[in-house]
Amino acid sequence: MQLKNDLILRAAKGESTERTPVWLMRQAGRILPEYRDIREKLSGFKELATTPQLAAEVTLQPVDILGVDAAIIFSDILVVPEAMGLPYEMAEAKGPWFPKKITTLADIDQLRVAQAELELDYVYEAIKITKEELNGRVPLIGFAGAPWTIFAYMVEGQGSKTFSNAKKMLYSDPVMSHRLLEKITGVTIAYLKKQIEAGADMLQLFDSWAGILSPAQYQEFSLKYISQICDALPEVPVTVFAKGAFFARKELGLLNCQTIGLDWNMGIAESRTIIGNNKTLQGNLDPCVLYTSFGEVKKHTESMLKEFGSHRHIANLGHGVYPDTDKDKVKCFVDTVKEFRF
Amino acid sequence: MQLKNDLILRAAKGESTERTPVWLMRQAGRILPEYRDIREKLSGFKELATTPQLAAEVTLQPVDILGVDAAIIFSDILVVPEAMGLPYEMAEAKGPWFPKKITTLADIDQLRVAQAELELDYVYEAIKITKEELNGRVPLIGFAGAPWTIFAYMVEGQGSKTFSNAKKMLYSDPVMSHRLLEKITGVTIAYLKKQIEAGADMLQLFDSWAGILSPAQYQEFSLKYISQICDALPEVPVTVFAKGAFFARKELGLLNCQTIGLDWNMGIAESRTIIGNNKTLQGNLDPCVLYTSFGEVKKHTESMLKEFGSHRHIANLGHGVYPDTDKDKVKCFVDTVKEFRF
Repeated sequence: MQLKNDLILRAAKGESTERTPVWLMRQAGRILPEYRDIREKLSGFKELATTPQLAAEVTLQPVDILGVDAAIIFSDILVVPEAMGLPYEMAEAKGPWFPKKITTLADIDQLRVAQAELELDYVYEAIKITKEELNGRVPLIGFAGAPWTIFAYMVEGQGSKTFSNAKKMLYSDPVMSHRLLEKITGVTIAYLKKQIEAGADMLQLFDSWAGILSPAQYQEFSLKYISQICDALPEVPVTVFAKGAFFARKELGLLNCQTIGLDWNMGIAESRTIIGNNKTLQGNLDPCVLYTSFGEVKKHTESMLKEFGSHRHIANLGHGVYPDTDKDKVKCFVDTVKEFRF
Repeated sequence: MQLKNDLILRAAKGESTERTPVWLMRQAGRILPEYRDIREKLSGFKELATTPQLAAEVTLQPVDILGVDAAIIFSDILVVPEAMGLPYEMAEAKGPWFPKKITTLADIDQLRVAQAELELDYVYEAIKITKEELNGRVPLIGFAGAPWTIFAYMVEGQGSKTFSNAKKMLYSDPVMSHRLLEKITGVTIAYLKKQIEAGADMLQLFDSWAGILSPAQYQEFSLKYISQICDALPEVPVTVFAKGAFFARKELGLLNCQTIGLDWNMGIAESRTIIGNNKTLQGNLDPCVLYTSFGEVKKHTESMLKEFGSHRHIANLGHGVYPDTDKDKVKCFVDTVKEFRF
């Protein structure tokens, strides 16, 4: 199937494009009334994520409603620990948590590794349905959590401001920590390869908790595994988004991937200098800009586009869109990017 | 009163010292059983903070028990909005919150500004008692929140991962935002001058939420006011700790202050290069290191000391010590610094 709009793939590869492509992290979600309608009828997030026909439906919504240049499969990074034998729950206010978490080496040894990716058929099925229904309109992005971020949830058992239990394990037992990170890495590679087989045109790794590690820990416990994943996936363009890892931008620029995501703290010109010219940059508007007026959204978006320049940029926010953002402001952001010409 | 140990003041001023001075943010608090004993007998945090004799007592505890090179007055940054007419509550699990918050210009106009610092007599009284009881053993640090961080709480009404309401106000109504920031700045200067009069030997500004602003917003809405405060306080050494503001280190280095605090994400050598040689650096051990073994605490602390070098460094963590940290590990951190020789 020939893609009718392959702007984002060309931008990722460093080819020239007629305009800057645009999508949003968390574009399939609570910002859309059409999503909330579907979600309300279900028992919870997990029913939606594990029912391929429904997951495909909400994946397509932002393409139809917002006109973004890519779809991203509706799922969660925590499906990987679940496939390894550590199921997660999604509590409405509290966020995700794990009834069983990792505290000992025995816990790690009991994890399922060989063919764990086969537990995630519902994701591949959702990708296949989405690809059919997209019918080549825009590319489909697959994704996974980076191993450190998955490790953080598996050890902490829930979200945390400090992830101090997870960091404690890194400091106190690096050997055990590496054993768990290796297992996560292996399953993640197999999982992402299956996503490509099912039809994902592009992949993104989310290292959501990159920013709570020291630079030395980040090198040892996160970048090493991200690098292995990038090396294992030559088939499609890969984006690495390491939120808060300003201190690792130079090393991120050396990864075997096409695109580096920036959060809104990371200066655009400075990041380009540090990362170099061989990567596409993605981001990085402050999600809070979308709380303001249409005029301000347009002004800040255009200013961001000018600073990134016409080459090797994929427009996005510097974080997932906040769930209480007005859909029309999101549309204004998307339209501003699509109408802008250098 | 001549100070018997003025290491920290000399280090702040760039004078040479026999060894690196050391203290910890949140050293007076839950890590000490002696603190918890006092706290349990009281109705809550606010009773402790507003009773000068008790506040002085817990301020002195870490000097006696941990042997740190400075005391920091036991209080909270939120006493400033309270003095301006916006009282805060301290909920045990939830953290601080404001029953009344700032949403309109009328709310701002109603704030008390002239002589608001006179509402905070209990702080000055606690400082006086502490100074007497310290009897010159070590210097006493006074403090306040940086205006942006105080603004963030006054507008948001509580802690938040995103402070999206506060950031929304900055983006949508910069004129109103500046009016509030100016008021906070004026009261903060008067408050800190009173702390000096009462006996504070040194001051620290905490910009706890620096890291959620974009670099441009940080310049306009935070650094501007921190700079005004630094200029207004030539009497004693001032430390600015802007957590997460890696992107503003160059500008922090140009402030009219003596010391810049680093969090554990900020590389030591890199920060020295960016900030320059005219500032003392404070920090920056990852608080999670104190969860590990005595051997690891010693190893990481010594490695940090070597990287900062013997000149213009005040040893500290890169954040407040976590409340569930073992007191003996904190003592090990302090002792390692005190025993280390270059």
